[in-house]
Amino acid sequence: MNSNLVQPKSLSGVMELLPSEQILFDDMKQKIENTFKSYGFLPIDTPSIERADVLLAKAGGETEKQIYKFTKGDNDICLRFDLTVPLSKYVAANLNNLEFPFKRYQIGKSYRGEKAQKGRYREFYQCDIDTIGKDNLSLKNDAEYPAIIYDIFKKLNVGDFVIYINNRKIVNGFFDSLGLVENKQEVMRLLDKYYKIGEENVVLTLREDYKLPENTISKILQFINLSGTNDQKLQQLNQLGIENQDFATGVFELEEVIKYIRMQGVPDANFEINPCIVRGLDYYTGTVYETYLRDYPNIGCVCGGGRYDNLASYYTDAKLPGVGVSIGLTRLFYQLNEQHLIKLNKTSVSDVLILPMDEMAIEKSYKIANLLRNNGLNCQLYVEDKKFKNKMSYADKLAIPYIAIIGEDEIKNGCVTIKNMFEHTQDAVLDDDLVNYINLQLNAK
Amino acid sequence: MNSNLVQPKSLSGVMELLPSEQILFDDMKQKIENTFKSYGFLPIDTPSIERADVLLAKAGGETEKQIYKFTKGDNDICLRFDLTVPLSKYVAANLNNLEFPFKRYQIGKSYRGEKAQKGRYREFYQCDIDTIGKDNLSLKNDAEYPAIIYDIFKKLNVGDFVIYINNRKIVNGFFDSLGLVENKQEVMRLLDKYYKIGEENVVLTLREDYKLPENTISKILQFINLSGTNDQKLQQLNQLGIENQDFATGVFELEEVIKYIRMQGVPDANFEINPCIVRGLDYYTGTVYETYLRDYPNIGCVCGGGRYDNLASYYTDAKLPGVGVSIGLTRLFYQLNEQHLIKLNKTSVSDVLILPMDEMAIEKSYKIANLLRNNGLNCQLYVEDKKFKNKMSYADKLAIPYIAIIGEDEIKNGCVTIKNMFEHTQDAVLDDDLVNYINLQLNAK
Repeated sequence: MNSNLVQPKSLSGVMELLPSEQILFDDMKQKIENTFKSYGFLPIDTPSIERADVLLAKAGGETEKQIYKFTKGDNDICLRFDLTVPLSKYVAANLNNLEFPFKRYQIGKSYRGEKAQKGRYREFYQCDIDTIGKDNLSLKNDAEYPAIIYDIFKKLNVGDFVIYINNRKIVNGFFDSLGLVENKQEVMRLLDKYYKIGEENVVLTLREDYKLPENTISKILQFINLSGTNDQKLQQLNQLGIENQDFATGVFELEEVIKYIRMQGVPDANFEINPCIVRGLDYYTGTVYETYLRDYPNIGCVCGGGRYDNLASYYTDAKLPGVGVSIGLTRLFYQLNEQHLIKLNKTSVSDVLILPMDEMAIEKSYKIANLLRNNGLNCQLYVEDKKFKNKMSYADKLAIPYIAIIGEDEIKNGCVTIKNMFEHTQDAVLDDDLVNYINLQLNAK
Repeated sequence: MNSNLVQPKSLSGVMELLPSEQILFDDMKQKIENTFKSYGFLPIDTPSIERADVLLAKAGGETEKQIYKFTKGDNDICLRFDLTVPLSKYVAANLNNLEFPFKRYQIGKSYRGEKAQKGRYREFYQCDIDTIGKDNLSLKNDAEYPAIIYDIFKKLNVGDFVIYINNRKIVNGFFDSLGLVENKQEVMRLLDKYYKIGEENVVLTLREDYKLPENTISKILQFINLSGTNDQKLQQLNQLGIENQDFATGVFELEEVIKYIRMQGVPDANFEINPCIVRGLDYYTGTVYETYLRDYPNIGCVCGGGRYDNLASYYTDAKLPGVGVSIGLTRLFYQLNEQHLIKLNKTSVSDVLILPMDEMAIEKSYKIANLLRNNGLNCQLYVEDKKFKNKMSYADKLAIPYIAIIGEDEIKNGCVTIKNMFEHTQDAVLDDDLVNYINLQLNAK
């Protein structure tokens, strides 16, 4: 053992997968991207490194402490910590080159110098999608996001899920109508934690820390505990007797959004009004969403976002209202994997492993490989000088579903011998029938 | 104008594209990835941030100066400057969890703090593909790369190209046989620059700087000026009268590799023996490749690589011979764009823009959108309150090929009015025929 060797370690807090896992990660990423595109959203790819003064125009507090920042030459450089600030920069910089509403998605890595901890990542993929208007933006855009989220989580096939929906104007107006001024922000943060800390603790805090009167507390509980169907909840909201313009506007917007969500065919079983959803306090101003997996609520929010009044106020005077959501893919993948919701077997890149039995079979093997590839199938030749047993084991370990054996007999008979690695069957298939044969079997799976 | 605004500037030396360009960039990236997969290569995605001690185990000189390095908490962190060192780390770390030959691709960003300069990037995409053996690796793998490169550049549709191919053993053996010891490295570097500086300057340097005798210089020129077909060049190599084991092995390997390249159907017009190709001096040990666009030689090498004896000697004692190539996609895209080889028109994400003419048409518009999406077509609704003219202009600017107009008449008649934006034609199409209609038109393009 060479004692000068450097240990090939990665940083803690990064996700580095084995190929069999990476295939599944990429598959999830592709499904998300394809859904974004199916709604006509345009791709952008802002750099991972940005000027510190630009990236930190708005940042502060906890976020700023976590940012990777360094100097090189004359530049103060930051690694981006999300995809929203770069989007703001991008839109402000390209105001005259973009068409509005500007529908864009970006899937990329962001970086935060968090304390290393299980399930916390310092480098993580975010899948962001936003619709940006200039001056104004129809409320129908707010209704499009639940449809997009619904399509994505159906395709990801991770079990039952629910999109919680709320409107920040309802929450703001509600607390304004109760006369909360001083503690409004704190009480709203408490709402956000309702499911984590439970009703009893919420009541205790409202009573003892914020000294709210009992009738205000009971009104808050009534608000939190809306129940029944979405229509029943809307009715209960209207019956709370709140006299406040923001509240009324919020309820109207929520009703409208729900009408258009339904029109798009999203079942009521997959979206629910939830008055506890508030999201980031200083950013969202209207509709807000959070998505949860029903069977795994402890995974937490898997897709969140909402409506904001002004995307890029730090960079431009143009008024840019928008709405969007983000999926934290690295964390989602980690959590799904932890819950054994990701099937690691039977995933390969190659559909077929071609095994030439001797040097004479190489030429035909190449021809068969070209034939498969020209017909959209992935395949690879095994050309190493190993025992047959090792070659079979290679296909098995890589979970390649079909082996094409090519030897003297196959050349003579114009066929290949196809071994089905999962069903342990074997067929002689004529060269001309091969593409059809493999496609039929793959489609039958 | 708010004077507190921060200018939304990006760092210099990063590529940030408008959506219409990004679509084309992504299309190139996708074609490259699909080709990698068609040969059965597995995806990996190593982090962009690595431990400095690991990443710099081998680095030095110019490269090390360009590396973005910083400290956060207890960690000395680097941004990766290529995808090869991370691959070495990955293979060494996962030696027992990988199957060999390990065929992997990675497409991702790397970072170098270069002086900002036109066409030089500080953040750039690399598309890397490698085949790693354990202890040994068949020469047939060397022959696979020209086939992969051929497939990729055919699909990228960037005109005629040539894959120059050489073998480092030939070059080493040749110069050894000439008795070059002291200046061997420098002379090999000179060879690498032959096309840039021209024969006259090469001769001058050999004569005046390295004091080589005239008969040695004339032998070198004979070597450089191999001519004719690949077979003629092989013959000329054999006729140089070089008595050297490395040289002989190199010529044998080159002959073998060329035999298998041809067997895969790569035409001789697209690959050429070129004795001046040497690549990185301390890494490659056998076959080397460089690809050039014939009509744009000044773009330089668009895809290079070769065979190496040992991937990860800094991290492990395991012997890991490999072969691979890399495409510098950001630079390639920039250069193609500069040469107007990239068509920026008529690219969109959406196939169809759906225009509901009034509120009554919203419901049917959603139904039509679902119908199109369920059949693999991308579409978007235009729901903003704007004039018809503005909506048409939106479709036009985004280069969306079809507009589906839905109003009172269309609802009554169970149809949609399809405007073809490029041919300026218009058809009433029955709802049930719509998917077929769009697909037929798209395929006819």
